Amino acid sequence: MGTGNYDYPKSNFEQPPHKVAIPPPQPFIKSLKNAVKETLFPDDPLRQFKGQSPARKFILGVQYVFPFFDWAASYNLSFFKSDIIAGITIASLAIPQGISYAKLANLPPILGLYSSFIPPLVYAMMGSSKDLAVGTVAVASLLIGSMLGAVVNANEDPKLYLHLAFTATFIAGVFQVSLGILRLGFIVDFLSHATIIGFMGGAATVVCLQQLKGILGLEHFTHGTDLVSVLRSVFSQTHKWRWESAVLGVGFLFYLLVARYVSTKRPKLFWISAMAPLTSVILGSILIYFTHAEKHGVQVIGELKKGLNPITIMDLSFGSQYLSTAIKTGIVTGVIALAEGIAVGRSFAMFKNYNIDGNKEMIAFGMMNIAGSCTSCYLTTGPFSRSAVNFNAGCKTAVSNIVMAIAVMITLLFLTPLFHYTPLVVLSSIIISAMLGLINYEEAIHLWNLDKFDFVVCMSAYFGVVFGSVEIGLVIAVALSLLRVLMFVSRPKTMALGHIPESTIYRSIDQYQNAKSVPGILILQIDAPIYFANSSYLRERISRWVDEEEDRLKCSGENSLQYVILALSAVGNIDTSGITMLGEVKKLMERRGLKLVLTNPGGEVIKKMNKGKLIEVIGQEWIYLTVGEAVGACNFMLHTYKNVEKQTSTGSSGKESRNDSNV
Amino acid sequence: MGTGNYDYPKSNFEQPPHKVAIPPPQPFIKSLKNAVKETLFPDDPLRQFKGQSPARKFILGVQYVFPFFDWAASYNLSFFKSDIIAGITIASLAIPQGISYAKLANLPPILGLYSSFIPPLVYAMMGSSKDLAVGTVAVASLLIGSMLGAVVNANEDPKLYLHLAFTATFIAGVFQVSLGILRLGFIVDFLSHATIIGFMGGAATVVCLQQLKGILGLEHFTHGTDLVSVLRSVFSQTHKWRWESAVLGVGFLFYLLVARYVSTKRPKLFWISAMAPLTSVILGSILIYFTHAEKHGVQVIGELKKGLNPITIMDLSFGSQYLSTAIKTGIVTGVIALAEGIAVGRSFAMFKNYNIDGNKEMIAFGMMNIAGSCTSCYLTTGPFSRSAVNFNAGCKTAVSNIVMAIAVMITLLFLTPLFHYTPLVVLSSIIISAMLGLINYEEAIHLWNLDKFDFVVCMSAYFGVVFGSVEIGLVIAVALSLLRVLMFVSRPKTMALGHIPESTIYRSIDQYQNAKSVPGILILQIDAPIYFANSSYLRERISRWVDEEEDRLKCSGENSLQYVILALSAVGNIDTSGITMLGEVKKLMERRGLKLVLTNPGGEVIKKMNKGKLIEVIGQEWIYLTVGEAVGACNFMLHTYKNVEKQTSTGSSGKESRNDSNV
Repeated sequence: MGTGNYDYPKSNFEQPPHKVAIPPPQPFIKSLKNAVKETLFPDDPLRQFKGQSPARKFILGVQYVFPFFDWAASYNLSFFKSDIIAGITIASLAIPQGISYAKLANLPPILGLYSSFIPPLVYAMMGSSKDLAVGTVAVASLLIGSMLGAVVNANEDPKLYLHLAFTATFIAGVFQVSLGILRLGFIVDFLSHATIIGFMGGAATVVCLQQLKGILGLEHFTHGTDLVSVLRSVFSQTHKWRWESAVLGVGFLFYLLVARYVSTKRPKLFWISAMAPLTSVILGSILIYFTHAEKHGVQVIGELKKGLNPITIMDLSFGSQYLSTAIKTGIVTGVIALAEGIAVGRSFAMFKNYNIDGNKEMIAFGMMNIAGSCTSCYLTTGPFSRSAVNFNAGCKTAVSNIVMAIAVMITLLFLTPLFHYTPLVVLSSIIISAMLGLINYEEAIHLWNLDKFDFVVCMSAYFGVVFGSVEIGLVIAVALSLLRVLMFVSRPKTMALGHIPESTIYRSIDQYQNAKSVPGILILQIDAPIYFANSSYLRERISRWVDEEEDRLKCSGENSLQYVILALSAVGNIDTSGITMLGEVKKLMERRGLKLVLTNPGGEVIKKMNKGKLIEVIGQEWIYLTVGEAVGACNFMLHTYKNVEKQTSTGSSGKESRNDSNV
Repeated sequence: MGTGNYDYPKSNFEQPPHKVAIPPPQPFIKSLKNAVKETLFPDDPLRQFKGQSPARKFILGVQYVFPFFDWAASYNLSFFKSDIIAGITIASLAIPQGISYAKLANLPPILGLYSSFIPPLVYAMMGSSKDLAVGTVAVASLLIGSMLGAVVNANEDPKLYLHLAFTATFIAGVFQVSLGILRLGFIVDFLSHATIIGFMGGAATVVCLQQLKGILGLEHFTHGTDLVSVLRSVFSQTHKWRWESAVLGVGFLFYLLVARYVSTKRPKLFWISAMAPLTSVILGSILIYFTHAEKHGVQVIGELKKGLNPITIMDLSFGSQYLSTAIKTGIVTGVIALAEGIAVGRSFAMFKNYNIDGNKEMIAFGMMNIAGSCTSCYLTTGPFSRSAVNFNAGCKTAVSNIVMAIAVMITLLFLTPLFHYTPLVVLSSIIISAMLGLINYEEAIHLWNLDKFDFVVCMSAYFGVVFGSVEIGLVIAVALSLLRVLMFVSRPKTMALGHIPESTIYRSIDQYQNAKSVPGILILQIDAPIYFANSSYLRERISRWVDEEEDRLKCSGENSLQYVILALSAVGNIDTSGITMLGEVKKLMERRGLKLVLTNPGGEVIKKMNKGKLIEVIGQEWIYLTVGEAVGACNFMLHTYKNVEKQTSTGSSGKESRNDSNV
């Protein structure tokens, strides 16, 4: 029999077994209310309002919408000093980057400056991050360029293109605000870390490829963003490459990369990297001014209009035939911008140990884009590079954004003529140097080591973007990520448990080498909720476990199987298909002469088993609180039965139907 | 301090705690192979081939593809007697139903008979169910009618319509075979029980509404299938209603329903219900023949061509401009037909305790539709009503299908003229009486009682079909079902655990009224895998649990919180976002002066924690095998710390950072 060398916990069965409780019934309305609360308000945002006077509630409400009024009261001179330094530093980065990214979106360069003036002011009032620096981002700029460029040519009809860009920005803003107000911020969570790494890397590669136009001084270039079209375009016009432009571009790129390398090695020298773009612009402009290289094929920015943002609320073109394109662009770029902005805000909040409310941030981002679209700005968010500089420069509050906005305002009012001679190739170098930092191959290797599936998601996002388009990459990656979740649920793990010696603990035999299976009893753990999507699978898989176990026992000549224990600890929920399935498994086991035992069904599971009358089918006495107690009871009965059988010498009580029973 | 009246399991901590094991590393290829096997071959279909001789393997292979050769050898006369009776019974049902459903699909009535001749023969060879009776079904017929009817008018261009129907059937067959061969049968599982109940009920309602045309003797009727169009069409031509037709229809419907009622009450009298359609047809035909009612506006079937199925392999029109419609129709009807056929086969297999291999059945269904499309048949599957009659009539094997096919063959060769005077209104009555049985309101009530969400899915499928279209209903229901799975993963349950008195067991406080929370320790259980889709949520939710617990303790003046134990038993898997999240939670807890303790991480989880260096971050000594051991260790340290503190009288060791610590 072999029970001699198996030390099942006798002491456990001497106690009366504990009962599985059915949680007290809840009225339907209450459980619905709870479900809605957990789904949409997991962070309980109105907690602080509870039990306050109306006046206090009003003040709290204003502070809730405008966190500025919350922290402004405790603002002091030492904060201000830090914010001034950080603000000027990020302004010096914002001006050249703004111009570069606007070129990337095929928009007039001046829009990049406009976009660093109004949106930061809105964010400073409404945003809850202390470290986020507002501005345009390369990926969203590229997306606007490629999505709007597919229907309207920016060179042939610049006005229509511009109006569509404002409309798309407005729609992105409205979409962001709606997500925040409807508390659907969790949609952003479906862009997994792996998706974002791959997507960002792919977009950065694409953006770098686009810069070949500027670096090589080409005048005509493909509208496609994929690797194949770009390389074909570049190598089909080798005779038009300009060496002057290339030398300048590579030189500045080298300078920028060295500056960044120094700053990475010594975080104290962050300002070298932060100032490098502006010094490149200044050096480049001086060089062109004195060499008149603009007459030798080196393209320059040309005239930038002096003055602050013109009002463009009348330019939002909702009647346009391209409205659907604008809506699509707005939603896609809006989501991407949110994902970046919120991830950045959260990362820095983690460092400094304060909280970011994702839904509130969405409202702030949305309002800043709505305001921006009415004042000549295009899509802005919280770019990682700029926010990191802001953080390293020691910013204390969102006042650094205000300082940056004022610096940009002064530039707009007085300094725009200085950019006349700025060569485009310097802007290309600035973009490339910023983008190379986004290709995070170390993180991709980390993903490979940690989780192969995440790596696959990351790579498909990357190659989807590089060889297809930004949207294709995104759709593939999100679809794969969702598929994984569905696969987890439709193919849940089942594992055999064994007894850990000298304890009442049962754990997976695969994981614990010292766990021993119990003679005559198969203990299976199901590792996911039982839903329609997996109930057929689980039924078949449990049958197969039993088949395999019986084969194994037959080969080794051990006692035949008598009990199948299903450990339901990890079954968080069950639906009607699942209840039906458990009933079917009970029948199947009965036909094979086996007893089905359940252990530790959770609240939801036992509630539904009760409603579905499954408790009677299984038998109240076959449902235990722990695997240990179930095994104790089974062993007790195995022994009793064996003794009875020895006395009567022939099996009875329904065992006839089993062929392979060798008891 | 209150520990006096709290009986934590001291005995447990006197033993050295058990270690959490990291499962032995598996080579990547092996784990990939395992994953593929579990996903596509959970039933291990090739198990019986293992270790057999080549000749035996060949025989097993033939028997695998054609189960007929498996059971034919042991076929005997007593089986044959039963099968003859069952076969003739289902033939008497198949003939009128076949003609009715073909009319529903706007196809020539004779196709209904053709479709009950070839496909049952194919299924008898290849199918593994002993009880399934093959034939056309109402819902798929309706779908063919509405989907093909949307592009081609069956009255204006009957030939093109017919060819498209054959093409759609061929495509459905190819699709079914591919699903089976690629072992993607689990796609059918995504049509949950609730979806099918609602969908079938909706489709039955729609089919009944369509019969108003026949019952009221209308000649023109809407092409729409939704309630609004049908009612508008019916009530806009009240002056064309024919009372003769209506009286006949209602009379026969009453007869059919009474027959069914009798059979339901006394299962032995199943043949009354089974024969009722044929007797209705005979009675109706005789009535018309003698009253010449066909001249007074009662429509009749008219001439049916004598002879067996013409070959239609050349009629498959792959070059047609409507090919995409045929493909769509084929795939949608193919999936629906599979879902019904496999569910029916499985249900009866459960009764008689034999196994149905879903993927093999798909291949059988697919082959029977491919063969059917080449021989003037349209889509067939295993209808529930006919199979139930087959089962009740005592069929033993698929030979009953062969008997039915022979009976239909004789009808086709000699008896078709008898149907000339069969009134259409009788066919309408037969359809309505069959459909009313599909509106399973009792099951809908059961769903409401058992699982509210399943009820919502069911109702949206129903109303989607009735007010929208069959496809709309299906899409809504599947989308809702998937949303539920995603919501489960993105908003996993977290629950506080408490100690069950006189044990070492910790269970949910909500479920177990006698479970007591442990002073100074918050024990949380996470009830789902930790994925990108829920990692932000879990981080916030854990923070909120801690906030709420600290508020509660502050109000009640109890000891402050010292330890947060996360019970990971139900966390079946984790991805990189999850690993990052756990690291962040650790940091958050540290900042609040709390210790984070993990218990019972599963194999996948501990493996990834190890690779992600999270074990070092959390600390090996803070990971326990059971909640009991973790609580024991925490309590031990709480006491030691308290004693040390009492001696030194001021807190040290990193506790200063906490404001609300009142130890």
